[in-house]
Amino acid sequence: MKKLSTRDMQFRSQFDMLISVRQSDAQDVSAPVRKIINNVRARGDEAVIAYTAQFDGHELRADAIALTDQQRRDAIAQVPAALRDALVLAKERIISFHKRQMPQDILYTDEAGLELGLRWTPLDAVGLYVPGGKAAYPSSVLMNALPAWVAGVKRIAMCVPMPNGHLNPLVLAAADICGVQEIYGIGGAQAVAALAYGTKRIPPVDRIVGPGNAYVAEAKRQVFGHVGIDSIAGPSEVVIVADKENRPEIIAMDLLAQAEHDERAQAILITNDARFAAGVEAAVAEALKTLPRRQIAGSSWADFGAIITVSDWDEAADLVNDIAPEHLEIMCADADGFSRKVRHAGAMFIGRHCPEAIGDYVGGPNHVLPTNRTARFASGLSVYDFLKRTTTIGAAQDGLKEIGPAAEILAQAEGLDAHAQSIALRLQK
Amino acid sequence: MKKLSTRDMQFRSQFDMLISVRQSDAQDVSAPVRKIINNVRARGDEAVIAYTAQFDGHELRADAIALTDQQRRDAIAQVPAALRDALVLAKERIISFHKRQMPQDILYTDEAGLELGLRWTPLDAVGLYVPGGKAAYPSSVLMNALPAWVAGVKRIAMCVPMPNGHLNPLVLAAADICGVQEIYGIGGAQAVAALAYGTKRIPPVDRIVGPGNAYVAEAKRQVFGHVGIDSIAGPSEVVIVADKENRPEIIAMDLLAQAEHDERAQAILITNDARFAAGVEAAVAEALKTLPRRQIAGSSWADFGAIITVSDWDEAADLVNDIAPEHLEIMCADADGFSRKVRHAGAMFIGRHCPEAIGDYVGGPNHVLPTNRTARFASGLSVYDFLKRTTTIGAAQDGLKEIGPAAEILAQAEGLDAHAQSIALRLQK
Repeated sequence: MKKLSTRDMQFRSQFDMLISVRQSDAQDVSAPVRKIINNVRARGDEAVIAYTAQFDGHELRADAIALTDQQRRDAIAQVPAALRDALVLAKERIISFHKRQMPQDILYTDEAGLELGLRWTPLDAVGLYVPGGKAAYPSSVLMNALPAWVAGVKRIAMCVPMPNGHLNPLVLAAADICGVQEIYGIGGAQAVAALAYGTKRIPPVDRIVGPGNAYVAEAKRQVFGHVGIDSIAGPSEVVIVADKENRPEIIAMDLLAQAEHDERAQAILITNDARFAAGVEAAVAEALKTLPRRQIAGSSWADFGAIITVSDWDEAADLVNDIAPEHLEIMCADADGFSRKVRHAGAMFIGRHCPEAIGDYVGGPNHVLPTNRTARFASGLSVYDFLKRTTTIGAAQDGLKEIGPAAEILAQAEGLDAHAQSIALRLQK
Repeated sequence: MKKLSTRDMQFRSQFDMLISVRQSDAQDVSAPVRKIINNVRARGDEAVIAYTAQFDGHELRADAIALTDQQRRDAIAQVPAALRDALVLAKERIISFHKRQMPQDILYTDEAGLELGLRWTPLDAVGLYVPGGKAAYPSSVLMNALPAWVAGVKRIAMCVPMPNGHLNPLVLAAADICGVQEIYGIGGAQAVAALAYGTKRIPPVDRIVGPGNAYVAEAKRQVFGHVGIDSIAGPSEVVIVADKENRPEIIAMDLLAQAEHDERAQAILITNDARFAAGVEAAVAEALKTLPRRQIAGSSWADFGAIITVSDWDEAADLVNDIAPEHLEIMCADADGFSRKVRHAGAMFIGRHCPEAIGDYVGGPNHVLPTNRTARFASGLSVYDFLKRTTTIGAAQDGLKEIGPAAEILAQAEGLDAHAQSIALRLQK
């Protein structure tokens, strides 16, 4: 864990190092991924089956790529009622928040007499990638599937790998609660390729969302353009802005809640009080003694954790904007006022009673958020990811008379004579 | 030019060929582009200058990478007043339409007592790529820069290559009208790399937009993730749905207005009248005799043009949705009714008096639109490309009491104990 102070002469270089340190080790898997995609395009299900045997240790028959109702029911039956109820609560809250995001169409007649509009329509079909293994989170299924459903997407197809033939009951229960019934037991770059280009058994989709490992991320990057993708997620991160009125154990646990996700997660505390900083540091050490995931959380905290001491909250806000964190907890006196100074953050948790974990599950807003400083230009998942816009222009002849000549001049200046004539011919009449 | 009829037994395979024929020949320039990007990251302006000499035949000094006010003024002075007036009219109409797109923030307290919100903020800095040579269109400068300005982006930096030292006055005049003053006389993958990673002379931006050749497109693909990019544009296309009440010469000119952009552009007429189809075919042949860009337009029409005869308008609407065209002109009796059946299109031009060329220049909606069937999942450029969202959650202790336990159950089910404890600690108090 690094301790930084803005009063330190070396602060800026230390800080720049801190916020860039996790960017360096991206594995280049572009060549093997390109090969997988080409094979799936050429040989379809046959290639998908071969890669599934090779990478997941799971022998699939072609007619078993899609899960059966029985497989789904058997898995779901293993999920306790309390857990199912919690998923349903989360679902309802996520739907409620995302419905508020739905945008309105535009249609108006302007001064020149043109009728201008903008219409929103949902995508036809979306592919949802769900990782297998340790990162298989039912909450992610909800967060990815429900915005698509709210947006009006008719077909949601899910891919989830079955390592050694094992199905994750929680993931299937979450899919069931979201009404997702088209599920394929495949993963990796081969699943992304199948969703993007289609096979005999897997009709193609228009956009692929959901987290995955380096191969999945690279595959999404390579199919981008043929289908849409969501942003490529990196390891998670939190910045916590807190004053000494907080209990150090709570702040420590919030930091560790981020750190426990991944050895490469990053948790940063920004405070204006050096003694409080020391208290949090001690509380983290104490909590790490008993935390079940202390191995992962301890490694993340040691390698990428930081406590930054600032002189005032304006300084803190500037640092937050430089970091553009995925998650920002604001736990100082005027938390709302502080939040108004933040230009770049994926999600903010405002006040002392709202840990980031609420947003992971039941808050309502999406937990799929821009990582690794991309909140400078990117946003969390939303209904907008599953909608697209069509603009419309309608002109009566008078409207064309008013603005047509300017368009003719511009077309001629750009050397596009047919453009100009397409207007001139209509004005002649 | 292909003539298809939905009554033909082979129609479906012919149609599938027609709409996929342009996708096959993407040049793989990933290796040379990767090298250029790495060099610019390592050696900054020095590498940019070397590549500019190599690719543009233009020797730059480091202190001349940014255009001077004098260079800009000299170029702008060459632009006739009528042309400048047309650009100003276009600007005003584009601003007016894009202002209507600006979304509203959300903030409300829900039944559980949580305060939930969503705030929109503009990007800090945007890079605008403008191609040199034949595709240097002043209208593109307006269409890319103005949505960013409307969204509230403070810094817009433009790169435009200067082949053999030549500046395009129209492009500079358009930039001037948009208030863009930070202009670099560089292009290609080296310009994209400089905008993405920054050099001593060129501060980095957060998102790069604008069209370019294969190198520029690949460079944007490779820097994606570090910065945002717009969609990768392919050659332009139009679908025109028209009945026999139209003048064949007008429809012919609309088809050629698309075809004259690029040998790989695609213009498709869908009509319900075989005699009208023959009339348009003859009118295209006639117009091609005298059109200044007949070489390009003729090649596009011969290789990728098509006339499809349908039995009724429902059939036509289905085909349009399969194509998901960038531009759609609807020139049949109930044009508005037809438009309501269209799910996928970048922009629609509704009625007989609105050629697509109006949308290229002065309509108001953006002319940067999804090509090559990507309107299935993508949209035209808009203020949304220059805004991002931050969600907010605020909870009083009572709110946490109501929904916290469900979050604890889910965190435990996912094996994330610190998540659960971060809630439990707050509920204890």
